[in-house]
Amino acid sequence: MSSLNNTLKIAILPGDGIGREVMPACLELIDAAVGQAGAPPLVFETHQAGAQYYAETGEALPAAALEACRTSDAILFGAMGWPDIRFPDGTEIIPQLDLRMEFGLFAGVRPIRWFPGLPKVLSDPRAEGIDFVLVREQTEGLFYARGRGEVLNDQEAYDTMQITRAGTERVTEFAFQLAAQRKRRGKPGTVTCVDKANVFSSMAFFRKVFDEIAAKHPELQKDYAYVDALALNMVKKPWTLDVLVTENMFGDILSDLAAGLIGGMGMAPSADIGDTHGLFQPAHGTAPDIAGKGVANPGAMFLSGAMMLDWLAVKHGDQRLADAAGLIEAAVEHTLSTKTAVPMEYGGSANCAEMTRSVIGALGAVR
Amino acid sequence: MSSLNNTLKIAILPGDGIGREVMPACLELIDAAVGQAGAPPLVFETHQAGAQYYAETGEALPAAALEACRTSDAILFGAMGWPDIRFPDGTEIIPQLDLRMEFGLFAGVRPIRWFPGLPKVLSDPRAEGIDFVLVREQTEGLFYARGRGEVLNDQEAYDTMQITRAGTERVTEFAFQLAAQRKRRGKPGTVTCVDKANVFSSMAFFRKVFDEIAAKHPELQKDYAYVDALALNMVKKPWTLDVLVTENMFGDILSDLAAGLIGGMGMAPSADIGDTHGLFQPAHGTAPDIAGKGVANPGAMFLSGAMMLDWLAVKHGDQRLADAAGLIEAAVEHTLSTKTAVPMEYGGSANCAEMTRSVIGALGAVR
Ligand SMILES: CC(C)[C@H](C(=O)O)[C@@H](O)C(=O)O
Ligand SMILES: CC(C)[C@H](C(=O)O)[C@@H](O)C(=O)O
Repeated sequence: MSSLNNTLKIAILPGDGIGREVMPACLELIDAAVGQAGAPPLVFETHQAGAQYYAETGEALPAAALEACRTSDAILFGAMGWPDIRFPDGTEIIPQLDLRMEFGLFAGVRPIRWFPGLPKVLSDPRAEGIDFVLVREQTEGLFYARGRGEVLNDQEAYDTMQITRAGTERVTEFAFQLAAQRKRRGKPGTVTCVDKANVFSSMAFFRKVFDEIAAKHPELQKDYAYVDALALNMVKKPWTLDVLVTENMFGDILSDLAAGLIGGMGMAPSADIGDTHGLFQPAHGTAPDIAGKGVANPGAMFLSGAMMLDWLAVKHGDQRLADAAGLIEAAVEHTLSTKTAVPMEYGGSANCAEMTRSVIGALGAVR
Repeated sequence: MSSLNNTLKIAILPGDGIGREVMPACLELIDAAVGQAGAPPLVFETHQAGAQYYAETGEALPAAALEACRTSDAILFGAMGWPDIRFPDGTEIIPQLDLRMEFGLFAGVRPIRWFPGLPKVLSDPRAEGIDFVLVREQTEGLFYARGRGEVLNDQEAYDTMQITRAGTERVTEFAFQLAAQRKRRGKPGTVTCVDKANVFSSMAFFRKVFDEIAAKHPELQKDYAYVDALALNMVKKPWTLDVLVTENMFGDILSDLAAGLIGGMGMAPSADIGDTHGLFQPAHGTAPDIAGKGVANPGAMFLSGAMMLDWLAVKHGDQRLADAAGLIEAAVEHTLSTKTAVPMEYGGSANCAEMTRSVIGALGAVR
């Protein structure tokens, strides 16, 4: 890899609730990791957006924030939304859904990996081998219906799911490329198409397009699963899974289920990737119950930051950014496995500041 | 309860694969339990249907079988379908979906309960308290699209989800009545509405109708969950759940996930209930990998038989049938908890015949 020669600008949207707590912690960690890896510092441009900002100004995602997202090299989100703050029609304030459409962030990448220090949710010891990535299509599927649904006469309501060839091709291609890169355990990767092709024609179409893309990757394995059976197997033998690709709504459900296997959202990062833009965000919400207390676990935010650095490294051909990503991941794992700091949600006593101090401290140890 | 004075006729459809193995076992057990409870024997009328029958005759659900289902007091299914046998258009042979529509079997009742002898899938000891019922709407939702989906020009495909007021009212009312009957742990029941009301107008409509029905049951608790969050909580704290009511597709996914919490489909019964008919069936499929070997675990089939007896007891006001149901449940639990016979899927060596002999033998012990 060659190294980049211009400064990278990152749009920072901390959002609401614990998003505002874990984001500053993450920026501090990124600065430290990037410095240790010898890469030039990233430039952070912070913007307000989300439910609280909407309550104050009437705007959830102001033009300046949107513009910063558009023109930055990457977008880093905290968390957005708040139970009591809604649009006049009662719907929730979730700008991340709008950005998925606006920038065509078609691949929702949700890696789930167990490592020492994480809760052992499943009793089977093989669960220590959980290491898969769910790729959720994010621009169509059932979410195509958002804002288009109909309620007739207070008697019946309809929402339509859309599956397009182009949308399925790009997300499936993405999944196969990911499987090729992962080279998980040295074996050729397997991409599993998760659908309900036995009942719905749109899902049979999804599988058909998946097959066409799979044919272009003969060096990789392909597999199929009905979404209900896959939900069962995620509980029964998640260590057998590698890369999954699925429809938007199915992916929404399965990614939360998957996070449950490693103890919840506390260590579940996510990336929303498009052809030109990438948005990175912890999978958790704003956690109104603990917001403002400084006790949130910043782990998922840290790992989302690492995903961003990895993506930037590939995009700009700069190994130092990949090194910084690796440092963050290793430092998070080191902190948890040595129990230097144990987050409250895993029964420990470390608050957000203490977790952050430990992980930054661990950067030196894992170099 | 008064006792019934006419013989009850049950339509028996063993179907395919292991359905043909677990069904005879179940009928033997029902006979024994009904006898011990002092109720008059049920009359079983067995019909062939399913994929194998389709391969032989070109009909998946012959008119005589359908008529028997229509005119019987209850319907007992084994399992249907076979990977290689499909309709000419490539779709699977799943007559149970047709019957749900034909007889308006709107409530898919899927109880999930842990009891000693079942695998401990979750490591948290509170998982021993898993005891909830998922009520899946089964006549509309996304499954409304079955047979109606469109694929345009090999470029895009659409499937539409339908939520009606009437459909939502009846399934929600069913869930509240179930919660009232269960009196789980002596506490007033809680019905949780599982939806995606934050994104879809049909789902917001579902929640609105749920609220209207809930208002008629002030003695019970109500709760809401987004389907993604519920999937996470099913893994994180399933012991907190009581009665869940949800849309068809969501229910399909969640009920498989739920079965995973007790070790898979091996002990997951189901009932499809309508205003006039009731169909009872293990949640598992035909299991082509083990079919024909006599090794299938008949547990879910047995518990489905017990659900049928319970439903008939209420419908016909006959306590003896409820007693027979209780005997079957207790005998299954006794067999597993004492490890008199351990099914192969839980690492034991008991085949279908041995499991059946043990459970029938246990009827005496649990009386
Ligand atoms: C907030 C919500 C609308 C969103 C979604 O459903 O996509 C979230 O659950 C997610 O997974 O990103
Ligand atoms: C066989 C299949 C079509 C069916 C469904 O999706 O309803 C099954 O999964 C079930 O849960 O009964």
